[in-house]
Amino acid sequence: MIDFYMDLALKEAWKYQFLTYPNPAVGCVILDKNGKILSIKAHEKQGEPHAELNAIKEALRILKPEFDFPKEANALHEFILKHHQNLLQNATAFVSLEPCTHQGKTPPCAKLFSTLGFKKVFISVKDENKIASGGAEFLRQKGVLVETGILEKKGKELLKPFLKWQKGTFKLFKLALSLNGSALGKFVSNETSRTYAHQIRSVIDLLVVGGETLRKDKPILDSRLCNAKAPNLCILSRQSLESFDKNIPAFSVKNRQIFTQIPKDAKFLMYEGGAEFLRTFKEQMDMFLIFHNAKFNEGENVKLDLELKPLFRGNYEEDSYGIYELL
Amino acid sequence: MIDFYMDLALKEAWKYQFLTYPNPAVGCVILDKNGKILSIKAHEKQGEPHAELNAIKEALRILKPEFDFPKEANALHEFILKHHQNLLQNATAFVSLEPCTHQGKTPPCAKLFSTLGFKKVFISVKDENKIASGGAEFLRQKGVLVETGILEKKGKELLKPFLKWQKGTFKLFKLALSLNGSALGKFVSNETSRTYAHQIRSVIDLLVVGGETLRKDKPILDSRLCNAKAPNLCILSRQSLESFDKNIPAFSVKNRQIFTQIPKDAKFLMYEGGAEFLRTFKEQMDMFLIFHNAKFNEGENVKLDLELKPLFRGNYEEDSYGIYELL
Repeated sequence: MIDFYMDLALKEAWKYQFLTYPNPAVGCVILDKNGKILSIKAHEKQGEPHAELNAIKEALRILKPEFDFPKEANALHEFILKHHQNLLQNATAFVSLEPCTHQGKTPPCAKLFSTLGFKKVFISVKDENKIASGGAEFLRQKGVLVETGILEKKGKELLKPFLKWQKGTFKLFKLALSLNGSALGKFVSNETSRTYAHQIRSVIDLLVVGGETLRKDKPILDSRLCNAKAPNLCILSRQSLESFDKNIPAFSVKNRQIFTQIPKDAKFLMYEGGAEFLRTFKEQMDMFLIFHNAKFNEGENVKLDLELKPLFRGNYEEDSYGIYELL
Repeated sequence: MIDFYMDLALKEAWKYQFLTYPNPAVGCVILDKNGKILSIKAHEKQGEPHAELNAIKEALRILKPEFDFPKEANALHEFILKHHQNLLQNATAFVSLEPCTHQGKTPPCAKLFSTLGFKKVFISVKDENKIASGGAEFLRQKGVLVETGILEKKGKELLKPFLKWQKGTFKLFKLALSLNGSALGKFVSNETSRTYAHQIRSVIDLLVVGGETLRKDKPILDSRLCNAKAPNLCILSRQSLESFDKNIPAFSVKNRQIFTQIPKDAKFLMYEGGAEFLRTFKEQMDMFLIFHNAKFNEGENVKLDLELKPLFRGNYEEDSYGIYELL
C-alpha cells in the first residue's frame, strides 16, 4: 500500500501543478498510528502553507474539530507546534518531495514532523536544492524512520516544471479541444476548466499569443474567473502592434504590460492558441495542457504531427484534461 | 472519508465494467477495525468471486500472507468461513451494490460479512433484484451497522449497463481516436486498450460492424489479446454476405456465427466502426466507449454532432478512455 498512498499524494499535487509557481508542486498524505488515512493535501500556492503543513493541519482538524487554526502559514506553524497535544504521535507521512529543513517564507517542515512525533516518513524524491535539502537526514537523526525513492519516477515527473523554471524558462502550451479534436476558441471548455486556466494565467510571467487569436477571437485574456491579476501579454505577430484594433479587450486590461518579443527575465510562459500557433512552437514547448470537452462537432480538427507522453490526467466535471510532454 | 472509500470501490468496479456481463459491475473496499485500508477489489467476471468475496480474500491475505486460498468461488467461500480466525472482527466494508442474500452461483455475501464479524457495511445502491435483495436488512438483523445511499447517484450510473441488459438489450459503441479526433482503424490504440476491447468482445452476445469496415480494414475481429472466444458477428451492409471477399479473416474464425440482422435474443451488443457507422447508429446506443491515444496526426477527424455525458474515465498507459452516455 506504500505506493498507493504515495500515488494519492502525487495526484493531489498534480491538481495544483503550475499554480505553485515559483515553488514546486508537492503532495502529502498522513495516516494515523493505526494506518488510517487522516488527510490528503498539497501545496496550493506560493506563500501559502507547504503540503506537509496543510496535511498536518487537516489531520489535526479531523482528530479535533474544535481547533481554530490561523490561516497564515507562519502563524499556523506556530499554532500547531504549541497545540498538537501529541495527537499525531506515531503517525506516518507520505511526501512527494523531501521535506525542507530551512527557514524560507515558512518554517521547516522536517522539524514539524519530528516535533509532532511522526514515526515514519516516506519520500518520493530527494530535494536537490542545497538550501532546502537534508530533510531526510535531519529526520533520521531525530529517530524518525525515513524511506526515500517511493514512486521516484512519478515524483520526478511532478517536479519537472519546477526544475525547468528554477534554472531557466518553462514553456507551457494550452489548447482546448472538442472530443473529436476541433479547436473552438475560448468557449470550448466548461467554467471549471477555464478557471484552472485563469489560475495559471494569474501566476505566470507572460501569456504568449499569436496576432491571429487576438484579431479573430477579440479576447480579454485575463484571470477574471479567479478574480486575480491578469497576465502580461506577448503578442507574436508579423504585423506591428499599432496595426491592431485598439478596441480588442486584451488591450484595455489595467496595469498590463504588452510585449512583442519575449523578455529575457520571463521564467514561466504560457502559450495559448490554435493549430497554427501550436505547429509553429510545438518543438520549443516543455509541456502541453490539453482540455477536451465531451462533445463531437462538425468542425475541422487541429491537424499536425505531435507525439506526446501523458504525465497526468484529470477531470473537471464533463471536461477532461491532460498534461503532456513531447515524446 | 466515507465518500472517499466508496469512490475507491466505484472506480475499481468501473475498471471491470462490461466484463462482468451478465452480472453487474460491483466494487468493494475493506478497512480493518482501526480504519486502515486492507483491500480494494471488484467483481471481475461472471462465475468468479463477487466483489465482496474478492475483497475479503485480499484483506485476509494481507493480514495472513500464509493463507493458501482456493481459486474457485464456492470453495473460496467455504475456506474463508472455516479459517477466518475472526481476523476481520469489527472491520468495515464499502460496497457499491447491496450484498446479495441468495445462493446463486456463489453463496450469499451478506452472510459472509455477518459471520466474519464486520461492524459496519456502507452500501451505495440497494439491489432492486427481488431474488438477491434484502442484504441490508439481513445484516441489520445480525447486528451489523448498515448505511445505504452513499454516492448513490454514482452507484446507479455504475449499474446502468446491468439494468439495461437484464431487462432487454444494451448497446455499446466502441470508437478509437487519436488525441485530435481522427479514427485510425484498428491500430490507433495501444495493446492494453485493445486487450480491454478484446475482453469485452469475449463476453458480448454480438459484435456489430458495417460492411465498409470489413472491406477496408479486413479485420479478424476476435479476442486474441485475451486468448478468449471470438464474438459472433452481425454485418450490417446494403450488400449481400455473398458479395464479400471470403478471404477476409473475420470469416475464418472457428465456431463463429455470422448474422446480417440482429438476432432478438442478443442482450449485450457492441458496435465497432468509424464516423459513418457512428452517425447512423448513435441515437440507438446506450453507451459509448471512446479510446484516445496521445498523438496528434494529419488525419481528418470524425465529424458529427454528439453531446455526451462522461460516466467514467480511465487510462491504459499513454492511452485514455471514457465511458459515456448520450446527454
